[in-house]
Amino acid sequence: MNGSGKAQELRPSFVSDYMEGAHPEVMRRLLETNLERGAAYGADTYSESARAKIRLACNAPDAQVFFLSGGTQTNAVVIDTLIAPYQGVIAAASAHINTHEAGAVEYCGHKVISVPQKDGKLRADQIRDVMEEWLADDSREHVVMPGIVYISHPTELGTLYSLDELTAISDVCRRYGIKLYLDGARLAYALGSSANDVTLPDIAELCDAFYIGGAKCGALFGEAAVFPRGGIKNFITILKQHGALFAKGKVIGTQFDALFTDGLYWEIGRKTAQTAERLLNVFASRGVELAAPSPTNQIFVLLSQEQVDALAPQVGFSRWARTDDGRWIVRFVVNWATAPEEIDKLAELL
Amino acid sequence: MNGSGKAQELRPSFVSDYMEGAHPEVMRRLLETNLERGAAYGADTYSESARAKIRLACNAPDAQVFFLSGGTQTNAVVIDTLIAPYQGVIAAASAHINTHEAGAVEYCGHKVISVPQKDGKLRADQIRDVMEEWLADDSREHVVMPGIVYISHPTELGTLYSLDELTAISDVCRRYGIKLYLDGARLAYALGSSANDVTLPDIAELCDAFYIGGAKCGALFGEAAVFPRGGIKNFITILKQHGALFAKGKVIGTQFDALFTDGLYWEIGRKTAQTAERLLNVFASRGVELAAPSPTNQIFVLLSQEQVDALAPQVGFSRWARTDDGRWIVRFVVNWATAPEEIDKLAELL
Amino acid sequence: MNGSGKAQELRPSFVSDYMEGAHPEVMRRLLETNLERGAAYGADTYSESARAKIRLACNAPDAQVFFLSGGTQTNAVVIDTLIAPYQGVIAAASAHINTHEAGAVEYCGHKVISVPQKDGKLRADQIRDVMEEWLADDSREHVVMPGIVYISHPTELGTLYSLDELTAISDVCRRYGIKLYLDGARLAYALGSSANDVTLPDIAELCDAFYIGGAKCGALFGEAAVFPRGGIKNFITILKQHGALFAKGKVIGTQFDALFTDGLYWEIGRKTAQTAERLLNVFASRGVELAAPSPTNQIFVLLSQEQVDALAPQVGFSRWARTDDGRWIVRFVVNWATAPEEIDKLAELL
Amino acid sequence: MNGSGKAQELRPSFVSDYMEGAHPEVMRRLLETNLERGAAYGADTYSESARAKIRLACNAPDAQVFFLSGGTQTNAVVIDTLIAPYQGVIAAASAHINTHEAGAVEYCGHKVISVPQKDGKLRADQIRDVMEEWLADDSREHVVMPGIVYISHPTELGTLYSLDELTAISDVCRRYGIKLYLDGARLAYALGSSANDVTLPDIAELCDAFYIGGAKCGALFGEAAVFPRGGIKNFITILKQHGALFAKGKVIGTQFDALFTDGLYWEIGRKTAQTAERLLNVFASRGVELAAPSPTNQIFVLLSQEQVDALAPQVGFSRWARTDDGRWIVRFVVNWATAPEEIDKLAELL
Repeated sequence: MNGSGKAQELRPSFVSDYMEGAHPEVMRRLLETNLERGAAYGADTYSESARAKIRLACNAPDAQVFFLSGGTQTNAVVIDTLIAPYQGVIAAASAHINTHEAGAVEYCGHKVISVPQKDGKLRADQIRDVMEEWLADDSREHVVMPGIVYISHPTELGTLYSLDELTAISDVCRRYGIKLYLDGARLAYALGSSANDVTLPDIAELCDAFYIGGAKCGALFGEAAVFPRGGIKNFITILKQHGALFAKGKVIGTQFDALFTDGLYWEIGRKTAQTAERLLNVFASRGVELAAPSPTNQIFVLLSQEQVDALAPQVGFSRWARTDDGRWIVRFVVNWATAPEEIDKLAELL
Repeated sequence: MNGSGKAQELRPSFVSDYMEGAHPEVMRRLLETNLERGAAYGADTYSESARAKIRLACNAPDAQVFFLSGGTQTNAVVIDTLIAPYQGVIAAASAHINTHEAGAVEYCGHKVISVPQKDGKLRADQIRDVMEEWLADDSREHVVMPGIVYISHPTELGTLYSLDELTAISDVCRRYGIKLYLDGARLAYALGSSANDVTLPDIAELCDAFYIGGAKCGALFGEAAVFPRGGIKNFITILKQHGALFAKGKVIGTQFDALFTDGLYWEIGRKTAQTAERLLNVFASRGVELAAPSPTNQIFVLLSQEQVDALAPQVGFSRWARTDDGRWIVRFVVNWATAPEEIDKLAELL
Repeated sequence: MNGSGKAQELRPSFVSDYMEGAHPEVMRRLLETNLERGAAYGADTYSESARAKIRLACNAPDAQVFFLSGGTQTNAVVIDTLIAPYQGVIAAASAHINTHEAGAVEYCGHKVISVPQKDGKLRADQIRDVMEEWLADDSREHVVMPGIVYISHPTELGTLYSLDELTAISDVCRRYGIKLYLDGARLAYALGSSANDVTLPDIAELCDAFYIGGAKCGALFGEAAVFPRGGIKNFITILKQHGALFAKGKVIGTQFDALFTDGLYWEIGRKTAQTAERLLNVFASRGVELAAPSPTNQIFVLLSQEQVDALAPQVGFSRWARTDDGRWIVRFVVNWATAPEEIDKLAELL
Repeated sequence: MNGSGKAQELRPSFVSDYMEGAHPEVMRRLLETNLERGAAYGADTYSESARAKIRLACNAPDAQVFFLSGGTQTNAVVIDTLIAPYQGVIAAASAHINTHEAGAVEYCGHKVISVPQKDGKLRADQIRDVMEEWLADDSREHVVMPGIVYISHPTELGTLYSLDELTAISDVCRRYGIKLYLDGARLAYALGSSANDVTLPDIAELCDAFYIGGAKCGALFGEAAVFPRGGIKNFITILKQHGALFAKGKVIGTQFDALFTDGLYWEIGRKTAQTAERLLNVFASRGVELAAPSPTNQIFVLLSQEQVDALAPQVGFSRWARTDDGRWIVRFVVNWATAPEEIDKLAELL
């Protein structure tokens, strides 16, 4: 793993899923096409090809697909595009836009209407309650009008919506005339999970927009924003105005073209799911308690202060939160680049 | 130039300087470090190394350096950071922020106070006049307060500020207590031009912020924003809020580390300058009239409609504007990737 | 009360405290000075006089005082002025800026960091907890940085901060280096309440900014924003940029000059407090249960559906919320213009 | 004119048209209705009555009419409502929104696309040229898309559009699918001018929105925004979000009800026009040169430095700009409150 090629002792790292560069196949394609000239701003043939493959994978022939360079950027711009300037966005209190995007949605002028969550998930009945409360308020003209719902799949806590849950959310959004947006920063790891029953065509059918995450799922960087039924006007201008129009569109397009060729994106998801399962087995065999169900590539476990202190010098992981009984909720993340030896080494150390 | 390796007829292209991927050396470094894990958000060792090299090259040991993914984004965020929310930015009417950034500066709430230009350049006396007019206005509390000056080097028209001109601009900014920001999207092509007498340390000394362009100057993508005397607080948060914080900082850091190793950035500039000179010679030998002096990698020439029609099917270039006498101002752009054969072929066709 | 002068049956109204015009004394002064010419934008002599009286009443000789035309406007502009563009505002979940200002604070780009409340009040320890949580977060650069605390006195629920509570809040703000802003839309009704132990000089000492409410407290309209220690630069420009600079400053200045002459503002508060006490006595004598302690001019009581239905045709009031046991929390508001006969009539009807 | 009632020497003032309070008839109505209770936020009967009268006067039965408290606020909110967040507003370089509103339009995120002007007026062919240039630009997706045209009637320089000119502007806007907005801060003085051939129904037919100025035309304060064909959704929420929703709507509604009763608004315009004519005669008889044609209540004349120095201690007026030959362009403004004696006195002094 070291560029200099020198042997060194393995230090397993489960800190995050965006510490490496690109999946080797993605990198290979970038290298191969490096000196080819492509039209700017996503009008190149690789971007066109990637868009066609994404439309096919989503079973959404009218979809508009745009390539952006970051997730927070994508969330802010897409939400700002889909709602009126005076509307707000309903999200779980734990949602990334509500916690770790430094107010990027508010920077665009929109309130995040947060609701309590369980396991990172928003429920259809919570959305209904927000809407009913707003509609019942005689002063609702003075209240931020909800315009869109934000969810992520997997959620911030690595959990998954079932197709039934997602369908119920979509139904309630349509009943109340608000939009539904899905943040798919780690979508590959949902699609690859054996616990997942939501497909890309499901998402395309049920949501008004979503993004297919690249940076955490095998790309060097980049995200693909999808408006499955099209109809978005002047989005290039909107992107430019937000400082989010990537000049060398070919560079992201080539990567998504690679990720959506021969099922690489799903392969990355599946392989990671197997790695996560191995990790879960290690925790189970060592009696480490899960802090939450972990169907995807983020696994939250409970460790005592002593365990944390012992492990920290030798393994990379994140302290997530403290429990009331003084233990730590600790996050371990795996991805396509996690080596089997890292799991083995962790097993030794536990 | 074609990834498939098939022979094909050469079609010279002078359309823009951001159609290829990265300079091979940059690409080599990206590949070499691809699977190494790096701390996110620019805290990795490659970004640290790149920052150190840039500080050295700028003779600015206290400089803060941040890596962003695009030029419009960099302009908007840096300007928004340097001035108060109620201040505006003085720029030439032809400035990129005033013409081709879709109002990204205004999206941040700031007025672009545009002044007429000649050859794309803003003059110190024009800045002085704006300030004096504002100061003399009894209603100036109702007028947007100028807070910063935006220039680019090279300018939109490929021209260069002399050190004297830049010094005069800096002096007038300091006299009136406003900031100076330099957009260096194509800075390598200024630094490599024989007509240029402005160095990176000069820029660092004379400006309050600037960016060293990567995307058009050898990087796959990415720009390095530099605050030469430091003092900027909470810029990571500001970047995040603007959707401009790049998660895998290592990916841009590695590129700038390569560009600032062994003088590659200057080498790219010099090589391109030689290519531009060859192109100028071709135009001169064919009697093609220059529309403007062209000391950098963008060359503006005057062609008749017939010439344009004849050339267009065989060579890539941009129609820039129409002259009053019915001719076209046509832009030819070269960069580090322009092949000598492309110039030869153009010479044949003219 | 009817402009046509015709006798009509009295219909008591307790709907809100901003349904009438101005207190007669304020109106008299407006009429008296109507044709006098005054410098625009608050530079007139009446505004100067009002400012001097407010500074004296606040024991804040360096205070900057500005007159604005509305409360939401004042909240948004003052908060936007006191914090950096990337900072947020801590407020009780029930705070007016978080519930009934249509996202005006978010429109300025700032997140409202809401915390649960009891009786409408924010506690010092809650502010401390928000700050400690933010400081303890390793990802805090990605989290909205708290920059200011918003409270109102009285609160949205008519309750009052004690001087001890306000001092504790101020202390915690200063300890963490954040600002404190107090919304005084109904400040007269706090100052006039026998339950209140917070004076204007206390507020001026403990807060970084506050506003003295006019519209609900005897003025035709208008609010006085106070920065008790001065130091705000370019606020006229900031007001203009936000569409909040009132051209005929004299019109608001004259009103505050009247309100701060011979203690009229306090007189309005005291008289209203007596009216509120009479109303409380009526409720007590009729066995109507209070929904919350009501030390100011907004009284929240519990009524059954039958009581609401019987009363609604004859008395104006607001249904505030439904309780779990099916009753209504109903709001009755009195002000300087409430007639004794209205209370009598209500007593009859209950 | 002095509140204290003391005799004092007359000092004529022609500084601006917003130094007094309200026209006596407006004040009378405010006083008369002062203690009546009215529903908040413009739902009261006086606002309803005013709206009905305005619709009738505009021959626009479907018009939506809203009352705001200031002109800059009205311009910014209405423009922000009528265009998409990424669109800009075409205006004469001298337009109030481009010069003296402190960037309020840019604060809402929109670029002001300014074009050179003559006599303060924008011409239809200039708008056409902006649109054609934008449409012809291959990079127009990177250019701010024009979405609306801003004009004022009278203009900043007191000039008037003819019906032909206004019709041509409206035609070109409709041809290119952009909106037309007219700032009527001084509309009464246009309507009262003998040089004017544009009626309120003309404006309602030709524009997408406009405002009828109150503050400078007889009201204590307040402006009436009119959307002549309706169709604006959620404007109360938009106003609230911008801090522009006036709580005691009755206070502005009553004033416009008075101004639109028995033709008072026109009467104010006509009386002022006569006063302006008397002033023009005085200038003509004294050989004072006009700086520009002055069909409305703002008269621009050329005075030498000596004349300015001699006059300034005894008469109020504004120095507008310096001419190249060292003279001053000086502005004299009259309104409904200008006394004949002021003109007489000025005549004496010249």
